[in-house]
Amino acid sequence: MKDAVEIIAEQFRRLPGIGIKSARRLAYFMLERPQEDVDTFLNTIKEARAHSCYCSICGNLSTSDPCPICSDDSRDQHTLCVVEQPPDVQAMEKSQEYHGLYHVLHGALSPLDGIGPEQLRIKELLHRLESSQVKEVIIATDPDTEGEATAYYLSRLIKPSGIKVTRIARGLPAGGDIGYADSITLAGAVQNRKEI
Amino acid sequence: MKDAVEIIAEQFRRLPGIGIKSARRLAYFMLERPQEDVDTFLNTIKEARAHSCYCSICGNLSTSDPCPICSDDSRDQHTLCVVEQPPDVQAMEKSQEYHGLYHVLHGALSPLDGIGPEQLRIKELLHRLESSQVKEVIIATDPDTEGEATAYYLSRLIKPSGIKVTRIARGLPAGGDIGYADSITLAGAVQNRKEI
Repeated sequence: MKDAVEIIAEQFRRLPGIGIKSARRLAYFMLERPQEDVDTFLNTIKEARAHSCYCSICGNLSTSDPCPICSDDSRDQHTLCVVEQPPDVQAMEKSQEYHGLYHVLHGALSPLDGIGPEQLRIKELLHRLESSQVKEVIIATDPDTEGEATAYYLSRLIKPSGIKVTRIARGLPAGGDIGYADSITLAGAVQNRKEI
Repeated sequence: MKDAVEIIAEQFRRLPGIGIKSARRLAYFMLERPQEDVDTFLNTIKEARAHSCYCSICGNLSTSDPCPICSDDSRDQHTLCVVEQPPDVQAMEKSQEYHGLYHVLHGALSPLDGIGPEQLRIKELLHRLESSQVKEVIIATDPDTEGEATAYYLSRLIKPSGIKVTRIARGLPAGGDIGYADSITLAGAVQNRKEI
């Protein structure tokens, strides 16, 4: 039989951001911790996963359907923020700058990876806009090639319906250093300059 | 119910070397991967752990008792290398410089943490030396305070029996830079200098 350390390390290696050394350290941890701790670790993941689902309205991960945000009437029902993935919703919520609704696409357009409009929750978005009070759609896809393409595609789809479409600003990150900023970011920051 | 992401992230946070951001990323991974992948991950850890045990002779992690190294007659039965933890055995084996037997202490003396000789596999070591053909004990505990204290303690215990006791050398690591070496390492490297 193959070494238990290597068998477990191989599983950890498949997780994002875990290299071979970390994977081995985690494997030893799993083998040397008390049985109880390891059981708690494994069962908690299993159960949390079993109790989680995607909200049928916004597509975000949730423990209820509709999710707490979609069912919260106190949120601004007139703005809808479109993001690529569930963690993006969490990041937006943490910024405390946005109080409207969300729509999670579950990806961005990437023809080379075979991801076209049908692979994303775009049909659901359009359907949702038809029967809602949304007046502004804020497109908060990532500021990379795929995210920008998706933003452009969506704006062309939505604008004809008369709904305002905006894109979150490109600019320098907080704590950034102009001398070390890449030129695309800096160009975006200049284009998006504001009078003060 | 608490957010599934946070529940899983909390579990990952307890693992060594996983910060809050990595823990969240891993939690999303566990929630968004296909059920099959997650089940494989959880079951593999569970099963590999269930099939693993400590060798009753050397104390190393193994899938059999005695472990493959202790049961391998072709290994040098006259030298015994004492290490702190199971990963140390793996590191020694990878160096391909040592072909004898091992003894894993499962720790190092650390009175402040309540770890005295009784908490380590020292009684087992002495017992093993009494009834073996071992002529040299190589102490390969870590080159830190606890490891050095343990090495000194063991050498005083073992030497009276006439068995040779050696300590792995302190020196500069391969690829190291003398200008950046700490002074304890450098002092050790000078003390351990060899004629060339």
